[in-house]
Amino acid sequence: MYKRMITFMTVCLSLIYAEEGMWLMSQINDLDLSDKGFKITADSIYQTGKPGLYNAIVWLGGCSASFVSPDGLLLTNHHCAYAGLHRASALDSVDYIRDGFIAANQGEELPAPGQFAYVLTAIDDVTKDVLKAARYAGDLTEREKLMDKKCTQIVEETEADRDDIHCEVVKLFEGSEYRKYVFTKYQDVRIVYAPPAAIGKYGGDTDNWMWPRHTGDFTFLRVYQGPDGTAAKYAPENIPLSTPVWLKVAQQDLSDGDPAFIIGFPGTTTRYRTANDVEYTLHKHYIPMIKKYRDLLDIMDKVTLDDPESAIRLANLNAGINNVMKKYQGNVDGMLGTHFIENKRREEEEIERYVNADKKRFKRYGDIFEGMSELTGEREAFHASDEILDAFGYYSGILYYLADYAYEVARERAKPEADRDPDFSEKRIREFVEQLPNRYLGYVEAYDKAALTYTLEHARSAPAGFNYFQLPENPAAWVESAYRGTKLKDVAYMQRLFGMRASQIEELSDPLVRMAVSLYAPKFEKKERLRNWNARMNDLRMRYIELLRSYRGTPLYPDATGTIRFTYGTVKGYTPRDAVWYKPFTTLSGVIAKHTGEEPFNAPDALIAACRQGDTGNWTDPELGDVPSCFLMTGDITGGNSGSAVMNRNGELIGLAFDGNYEAMTSDWMFLEEIQRTIAVDIRYVLFITQKVAKAQWILDEMKIGL
Amino acid sequence: MYKRMITFMTVCLSLIYAEEGMWLMSQINDLDLSDKGFKITADSIYQTGKPGLYNAIVWLGGCSASFVSPDGLLLTNHHCAYAGLHRASALDSVDYIRDGFIAANQGEELPAPGQFAYVLTAIDDVTKDVLKAARYAGDLTEREKLMDKKCTQIVEETEADRDDIHCEVVKLFEGSEYRKYVFTKYQDVRIVYAPPAAIGKYGGDTDNWMWPRHTGDFTFLRVYQGPDGTAAKYAPENIPLSTPVWLKVAQQDLSDGDPAFIIGFPGTTTRYRTANDVEYTLHKHYIPMIKKYRDLLDIMDKVTLDDPESAIRLANLNAGINNVMKKYQGNVDGMLGTHFIENKRREEEEIERYVNADKKRFKRYGDIFEGMSELTGEREAFHASDEILDAFGYYSGILYYLADYAYEVARERAKPEADRDPDFSEKRIREFVEQLPNRYLGYVEAYDKAALTYTLEHARSAPAGFNYFQLPENPAAWVESAYRGTKLKDVAYMQRLFGMRASQIEELSDPLVRMAVSLYAPKFEKKERLRNWNARMNDLRMRYIELLRSYRGTPLYPDATGTIRFTYGTVKGYTPRDAVWYKPFTTLSGVIAKHTGEEPFNAPDALIAACRQGDTGNWTDPELGDVPSCFLMTGDITGGNSGSAVMNRNGELIGLAFDGNYEAMTSDWMFLEEIQRTIAVDIRYVLFITQKVAKAQWILDEMKIGL
Repeated sequence: MYKRMITFMTVCLSLIYAEEGMWLMSQINDLDLSDKGFKITADSIYQTGKPGLYNAIVWLGGCSASFVSPDGLLLTNHHCAYAGLHRASALDSVDYIRDGFIAANQGEELPAPGQFAYVLTAIDDVTKDVLKAARYAGDLTEREKLMDKKCTQIVEETEADRDDIHCEVVKLFEGSEYRKYVFTKYQDVRIVYAPPAAIGKYGGDTDNWMWPRHTGDFTFLRVYQGPDGTAAKYAPENIPLSTPVWLKVAQQDLSDGDPAFIIGFPGTTTRYRTANDVEYTLHKHYIPMIKKYRDLLDIMDKVTLDDPESAIRLANLNAGINNVMKKYQGNVDGMLGTHFIENKRREEEEIERYVNADKKRFKRYGDIFEGMSELTGEREAFHASDEILDAFGYYSGILYYLADYAYEVARERAKPEADRDPDFSEKRIREFVEQLPNRYLGYVEAYDKAALTYTLEHARSAPAGFNYFQLPENPAAWVESAYRGTKLKDVAYMQRLFGMRASQIEELSDPLVRMAVSLYAPKFEKKERLRNWNARMNDLRMRYIELLRSYRGTPLYPDATGTIRFTYGTVKGYTPRDAVWYKPFTTLSGVIAKHTGEEPFNAPDALIAACRQGDTGNWTDPELGDVPSCFLMTGDITGGNSGSAVMNRNGELIGLAFDGNYEAMTSDWMFLEEIQRTIAVDIRYVLFITQKVAKAQWILDEMKIGL
Repeated sequence: MYKRMITFMTVCLSLIYAEEGMWLMSQINDLDLSDKGFKITADSIYQTGKPGLYNAIVWLGGCSASFVSPDGLLLTNHHCAYAGLHRASALDSVDYIRDGFIAANQGEELPAPGQFAYVLTAIDDVTKDVLKAARYAGDLTEREKLMDKKCTQIVEETEADRDDIHCEVVKLFEGSEYRKYVFTKYQDVRIVYAPPAAIGKYGGDTDNWMWPRHTGDFTFLRVYQGPDGTAAKYAPENIPLSTPVWLKVAQQDLSDGDPAFIIGFPGTTTRYRTANDVEYTLHKHYIPMIKKYRDLLDIMDKVTLDDPESAIRLANLNAGINNVMKKYQGNVDGMLGTHFIENKRREEEEIERYVNADKKRFKRYGDIFEGMSELTGEREAFHASDEILDAFGYYSGILYYLADYAYEVARERAKPEADRDPDFSEKRIREFVEQLPNRYLGYVEAYDKAALTYTLEHARSAPAGFNYFQLPENPAAWVESAYRGTKLKDVAYMQRLFGMRASQIEELSDPLVRMAVSLYAPKFEKKERLRNWNARMNDLRMRYIELLRSYRGTPLYPDATGTIRFTYGTVKGYTPRDAVWYKPFTTLSGVIAKHTGEEPFNAPDALIAACRQGDTGNWTDPELGDVPSCFLMTGDITGGNSGSAVMNRNGELIGLAFDGNYEAMTSDWMFLEEIQRTIAVDIRYVLFITQKVAKAQWILDEMKIGL
């Protein structure tokens, strides 16, 4: 029943809430932190060209982390280290996800294949350069292309083909500003302590996105450098990275109402979109994709029944699909349950009146809503056939997906440098090919075949027809035969495929490759069409944000772009529904109360014993009379923030953000002051587990706990 | 997942909690009400032989109610009037349960067949009489028999064969005290206003026993008397009963923390039982019965699919089974989730130490635990075969159940007066036979057959064997043929059956009757064996309570016996699990938030409109800023209390108790101070619905609201 119970909330749209915002480092100074109860100053967090607290914050490529010792000890979420644990498990045939891993000492740490750590070295405003590059553009599409090209050029110049440098140039406010972020990319990251899934994933998919929460979602990693101080690939002789800026653990207990802030790398938000955009996403994307995800999970269940090894190999994909499916479902429930779209439309009507009330404004913004509406119509016209094309992709099995991608790489390489898609630089291709062996660790033939069969069956049943190539009459039989014939199961062959020219690939008889070749033309046509559509839409969206800034009269933060951001708030509970108050702290007793002995509520014996024996060290909170487990705060985060350090008024570590709450799952589209909360694992629980369950006092010593 | 999440609670057993207790009227004086914040005095509630507030409290035979106007207007729960509504619906072919019923004025009120109202006229202590009757008994069984006989004799003398007098003599503290309650039995009760199920049963079985709750569980009835002032059967010329003592609605808003009390007729509790008793009930009764109830509901679902008329006829049975099944499940979850039995055992060990510490105590109580343990063993030895015999009863279809009962009646009548079972007095038989037409309103042949088939199949598969008569090879075919041959579908024939002598019944060829006759001997033997067992067990239980009183050193209230009791407490929320606080009030907005348009969350348009338009009269609570819907308080109630008036410190009406909370469903066995709550519908919600949704201002006027 839960999904129907989302509380009806009257949503005020025309305000930036006090605690809303994923702010750029350069915006922290404008937030008046001392007024909000913080003792730490904006300058000590970030100042252009100077070291600051932000240097302790690390990007993991999709997740966030932070240094917690001077020797490269990195603290992040268990689910952020999941892929690395998963690959290490597949390599060693040891289930590190289920069992956890604890290094007896620094020398015994476990390599995490494919796990990189990106340490920020510079942030630059490159707006002028990018805009200048497009100043003579003939139309919007050309303008967009020129700017994209300029961004690629900046990246390439910065990276200078070096494996240890990673650069991102991101567009802010849909194109009115551009920022360049430069990172050192460390490729030797090792696992120090990952708790068993029964702690790190306690509650599993049942509790995912939920409060009250009792997940010990943390893992300690360590970043290594070459003996010469460079960001080398894994080698036994590598040494821990020296990290002069690292986070100290809070000296004082955390309480309800305390101020707190977060620095991390939020992935994507779409806070400045219109009701039309939301509606399109809801009906054309979220709802059909939930069905698809459910089908894929069913397929996976069948395949992994009685096959624990396949289950390990697919664990990462399974967790990912479950997570995104629940997120989509939460969006659907939230949008339908809170009259989300109607409320947005109501604000838009007010904004239109505001535009119409002034001639100058009307001249600059008068075309926006109509223009967007027209573009939405254009997109809808192609939706049915685009959707089928999209199905032949990431969820159609690894082999087909890679064949498809390899041919696209070959086609892009055949183009003159200037016409290439910016995502296909030689360096990005090289990085991708290098990671292929890691991808193959997630390959399970039975699942791969079933997923591709599912796609083909879907294409056959599509009402819009499918005429890009002759679909097999019997998809299952065709796939069976294709997998007998294909050479793509061999990762070395796949790596060679990524080196072939388009014409060479076209000559191959491999059935999966042939299908990829025949789908290239319609996919490319679709991509070009969308690029053109985006160019026109972005222009409207950019001016819409300008309009919003004028209408609201408050400073705006840019939508999340996977780059470093600051958000602040307070430790605080919420009301999920009538007559219910969620308190901001869960406890160790709550962990035990959920324990049933069966996954996902199977707390380890050592944890239960520590609790029963009262062996809880210094980690009991005096107000709770118990060890805190997780807590809630009002910060504004999204996916990508996972693993972010949560800090107290002094900038000391109090926890790790690892989730948002189900009731506010529409938060990528709109901040919901009353019900939106960040869920963090309390640092006291992290340290209790590390000290009393894993008995790894040496990690606490390295963090200078109690010293 | 909910059932696994019951919070682990350390239960302290050796205390009477401040707010524990279902007190006798004669015990109220000892409770020191003023100390607990009450302004009303014990004397104004109850004083022997004088009128008091308790005179406004009415027994409905399984439920409680109260007078709320001087003209016999009675307020109770919707679910208490359910059987009457159900029979009226079956008679009129109008679905009064779904649609509700509102009388335009007093003259148009709807007769509620089979609905009686019992108005208390006297309470007497008859302990001495009963004990005296058994003073020369040879053994415990004879003693029990003599006392039962004395009770029957008191009842018969008091009722003097009059239809308008109902008397109960109840055993308190397992036999150390006896009380006589005398009622006037009013047989003309009419429906004034029953809201539609979408209000009165809002949330249905999903929300049943749950908090937060939004059920408008109330119905207005009226008690009628003959024009001559006697308690006559229904007749158009009857007039409203004059009720000088009636409850006034609270003048002030109710708040969190306010004191409150309840007077009603709690049915049965077993608070002074041992761990062995609890364990037996858990494993031998609750767990197997839950399975059986689930099967019966499945059968009912199949039968009523596409047959709305059958659904109406079975609605009452369906609601009853659902309710008891959830109650049993709650007991199972609660007992397993809170280490209930282990905790009880721990207290018993302490009590044993207390007994052993003193020679005198040991002499009087030293045999109790061992004696009980032996008796439990005796009972277990017969359990398997008893359980099969029990299956041939109430849940085996109406026709078989009545045939079985009719033959038992005939056999009892054949005995000398002195040997008869006290439940089989001529008056009780007459009352039962009179109600047969009402029972037949719940008869649905397809369900009846399926239920009997289920019983026969169960008996065939019983591992213990079944040798009381030849079970049919193919139960379904046998039942099919039996129902073709039986005359019992005719209610007039059934009434005649209840008038036949045993020898006449034995000569009948009716297959259902023949089966009942062949099962009589083993059933009777079992009954006698249990009577003997109970006599011995009761002696131990009576002395165990004596021992508890001495051990605890606090006054005790007797277990509930379906007779009038007083309980008090405060308006207060609770913590159902880690990090969650349930607030004590739900609101009208919460009703709307749960609305999905689909049963059981299909709030009527008129209610939604009243809310949207802010047409909420004077019923908005200033603190909540909303109309309250339901509230929680810490009173100690159980089944039978449904419909009980909840009153404030002045003795004014603030709501109607209608449920307990799921987390405390083991409360019949033990009071749980931290989590046990009474769920009441707020009188302000009752009046809001009556005034603004039903538009029945005349009812409010009659209750002198705002006058």
